Amino acid sequence: MRPEHADSTASEPFAARRTVEQVEEGLALAPKFDVDGLIPCVTTDADIGDVLMLGYMNRDALQRTIATGEAHYWSRSRQCLWRKGTTSGLVQKVVEMRIDDDQDAVWLRVRVAGSGASCHVGYRSCFYRSVELRGPPEEPTRLVFAETRRTFDPKDVYGDAPNPTQL
Amino acid sequence: MRPEHADSTASEPFAARRTVEQVEEGLALAPKFDVDGLIPCVTTDADIGDVLMLGYMNRDALQRTIATGEAHYWSRSRQCLWRKGTTSGLVQKVVEMRIDDDQDAVWLRVRVAGSGASCHVGYRSCFYRSVELRGPPEEPTRLVFAETRRTFDPKDVYGDAPNPTQL
Repeated sequence: MRPEHADSTASEPFAARRTVEQVEEGLALAPKFDVDGLIPCVTTDADIGDVLMLGYMNRDALQRTIATGEAHYWSRSRQCLWRKGTTSGLVQKVVEMRIDDDQDAVWLRVRVAGSGASCHVGYRSCFYRSVELRGPPEEPTRLVFAETRRTFDPKDVYGDAPNPTQL
Repeated sequence: MRPEHADSTASEPFAARRTVEQVEEGLALAPKFDVDGLIPCVTTDADIGDVLMLGYMNRDALQRTIATGEAHYWSRSRQCLWRKGTTSGLVQKVVEMRIDDDQDAVWLRVRVAGSGASCHVGYRSCFYRSVELRGPPEEPTRLVFAETRRTFDPKDVYGDAPNPTQL
């Protein structure tokens, strides 16, 4: 028999958000999803510590990540559940998941299979360019490549699949 | 005389978003703001590498962060520009700013003044709780405190200011 839990529902292992104290200091996951049903997720390399990507999860993606220990996201460009690495082989194994104070953001520390890359453009991190600080204010702010070479050619991995970047 | 730049506007040092290739591989900052005019910002400790917070910037906050080298955000709870540390003294000095592939997320590597904390609840990181993976699916997912003590008492720092956490 399924145990009774005042804070759970049949469909998902998340607690209801009742008080600020419970959300900030409690011991049950009570995530806040935005108006689109999504929660942002920062994903970092568990060993090196750099930020690999910022993704989004819906309830299903968050639940599957917790249940399987592999990162799942909601693809906003394709509008579908996205088990990271299904196409590329670059599966993200979750070493640790954290939740922030008001439980509206997730942090995943992961180890990436294969080459270790997480970016569809072919770089290791999606954040492969630095932004120049305190440049001339009348000009567009300049970027500098912090990663200097791609780890793979996207055409080899994704073929003719549509590019997820949207203008 | 102000130089002419096809990609700049009088009010802000951001380039227009014209092509996927320019956004992903170009050398000009062309950020994408969401329907609320915001771009998410992951902020990490420049030395230790852990994620301190996930904030949001509007155009003004992003511009001021680039111009001053101090982290500015848009406070969604207070609906105002927010120079981090004005109340608490915990100013974030930007060591490096990065932008992601499709330029819809910012990563700041910072050094924090004072105690080094960034969380309004008093912990060092906002992500002070780990989420238990692969727990019993019929129960609310459990959290474990990864940080065991607060670095300050929020009452001492913020007094009676409203708590930014929203249910």
